[in-house]
Amino acid sequence: MATIKDIAKKLGISVSSVSKGLSGASDVSEDTRQLILNTALEMGYVSRRSKTDTNARKVCIFVENMGYERIEQFGYEIIVGFRLAATEKQWDVDIVPIAMDRHFDYDYEEYMTKNNYSAGFLLGFSLHNDFLKQLARTSIPTVLLDNVVYNRYVACVGIDNQQGIVCSVEHLAKLGHTAIAMMNGEMHSRVSQERLQGFKLGMSKCNLPIRKELIAHGDYTASCAAPHIQGFIDNGATAIVCASDLIAHGVLAELYRLGIRVPESVSVIGFDDIPLARYTTPPLTTIKQNRLTIGKSVCMAMEQIMEGNAISRLLLMPELVVRESTGPVKLR
Amino acid sequence: MATIKDIAKKLGISVSSVSKGLSGASDVSEDTRQLILNTALEMGYVSRRSKTDTNARKVCIFVENMGYERIEQFGYEIIVGFRLAATEKQWDVDIVPIAMDRHFDYDYEEYMTKNNYSAGFLLGFSLHNDFLKQLARTSIPTVLLDNVVYNRYVACVGIDNQQGIVCSVEHLAKLGHTAIAMMNGEMHSRVSQERLQGFKLGMSKCNLPIRKELIAHGDYTASCAAPHIQGFIDNGATAIVCASDLIAHGVLAELYRLGIRVPESVSVIGFDDIPLARYTTPPLTTIKQNRLTIGKSVCMAMEQIMEGNAISRLLLMPELVVRESTGPVKLR
Repeated sequence: MATIKDIAKKLGISVSSVSKGLSGASDVSEDTRQLILNTALEMGYVSRRSKTDTNARKVCIFVENMGYERIEQFGYEIIVGFRLAATEKQWDVDIVPIAMDRHFDYDYEEYMTKNNYSAGFLLGFSLHNDFLKQLARTSIPTVLLDNVVYNRYVACVGIDNQQGIVCSVEHLAKLGHTAIAMMNGEMHSRVSQERLQGFKLGMSKCNLPIRKELIAHGDYTASCAAPHIQGFIDNGATAIVCASDLIAHGVLAELYRLGIRVPESVSVIGFDDIPLARYTTPPLTTIKQNRLTIGKSVCMAMEQIMEGNAISRLLLMPELVVRESTGPVKLR
Repeated sequence: MATIKDIAKKLGISVSSVSKGLSGASDVSEDTRQLILNTALEMGYVSRRSKTDTNARKVCIFVENMGYERIEQFGYEIIVGFRLAATEKQWDVDIVPIAMDRHFDYDYEEYMTKNNYSAGFLLGFSLHNDFLKQLARTSIPTVLLDNVVYNRYVACVGIDNQQGIVCSVEHLAKLGHTAIAMMNGEMHSRVSQERLQGFKLGMSKCNLPIRKELIAHGDYTASCAAPHIQGFIDNGATAIVCASDLIAHGVLAELYRLGIRVPESVSVIGFDDIPLARYTTPPLTTIKQNRLTIGKSVCMAMEQIMEGNAISRLLLMPELVVRESTGPVKLR
């Protein structure tokens, strides 16, 4: 096992050159970089971080507008996953709830520095514009859930939205559905755009037509779906892909109101697998976000940024959970 | 520090229930899962892997159609980055080159199992259909460069293509360019589609018009660009975004042949930062893929899959490298 110093000594060059070579910086000549890298491999280089035990770190989770104290709440398993992974790394974790009714009125960088936080995880932030501007120029390693900010110190962790909806469509196509509708969230949110792309990709993978009259945008609430359902039915939809479980709740309620049976007449599939998904009537088929894995992955991404590896996005594999709200298409 | 056994003993439940609770499996009741998770946090649970030193593993890198022995070759730093990260984890790494002229005619799973490989990294594979089919159903933790296969044991690592091209467009817009052309790779490749999306996103972020006559598809070779350049110029393009440095080489050559000066009359930007990018005339402004970071990230993604965390994609931050092939727009 060798350190940067050992390599520098052996090659007779400066520690900073070795450090640059090992990080892939382009201001070291290629010949030198190759020499450094080959020597690092030969000597069994390990970064200082993993050699010593003095890497105790203090990190901070900011939680806004999201419950996290009981398992029924969306934030609970994300935070537990994070804390479990942090325990292995011997990090201290503070949790700072941000009240729903007031903004984050600190200077982020100043707040983190003053409190000796090495890194932050922002969970459930709606991310107001001035906060986004702060994050765009911060040099504090920071991880966001679902939100994307392009800065080499900021990573986004979340589910692979596109592939999640592809799974939904493929599941319905296997059940014989061809007239599949999509009830999406806000048109301008990145998550909605990725889910819509997934819908189009899934439909074309299954050789099914994409019909404009079978796509609607609402928001991520249960109430947004109702105005669109009759139109979907009139246009022959036999299945509805929903961009969230909350939307699916609204779709199920409206179908019930219209006297349309699920899944006998229309299949419905959600997204998220929120704890209530198994308690709908009928129990909701959905795409699961494994929140423990999200929490663990946030911790891993955070460590990578701290080590200088600029991660942009880490997307997790969605998982189809089949319950009773989807079934074979009814031949009419 | 506690193990799964300690938690099971304390709670009086089976080891497999604890294990399921810790992985977020949905066949454990919520109450039980919350109890398990809270207990794990209280007792300071760490996974067995990180507690013992008996985690020596043997992993395999397959390299097809890509040089990796010298730093000028695209694969070199990726493999070094991987091996450096693997050294820290005390993994053994074998490298298996696959000849360009023959297919991978093994059964992947059988090959890996027979040779005691815990995981595989496939670098530079063109991924023939039957190999893709094998990967779609493998349960060997596997990481691919750029290619995407949806399977919870397979992850894709690569640069954030979309954001890379957004950076290119923003750089040109800041220099005053408004008529920006894009010379893309194959229309049907995922990488090209993501780069095209990035072009459209970047143009609309900069409030610039997307003009069909300024978008062309070729392949990722230097020779594909020539037929399109005169058309770009006739349509008023003052800058050309290229989907790769090889394409940019071809664009520079064609502009030279046409007697058009770079960057005085037309700016050109590449993608990849291949080692030759600094040796073009003029030296090429481009988007860097940090190959050491890619290699390290592959290793990290592999470890996550082995630990049961289903990663779908890990995207790395692109980095703008400004050399001399881009400059302020020439007012005509």
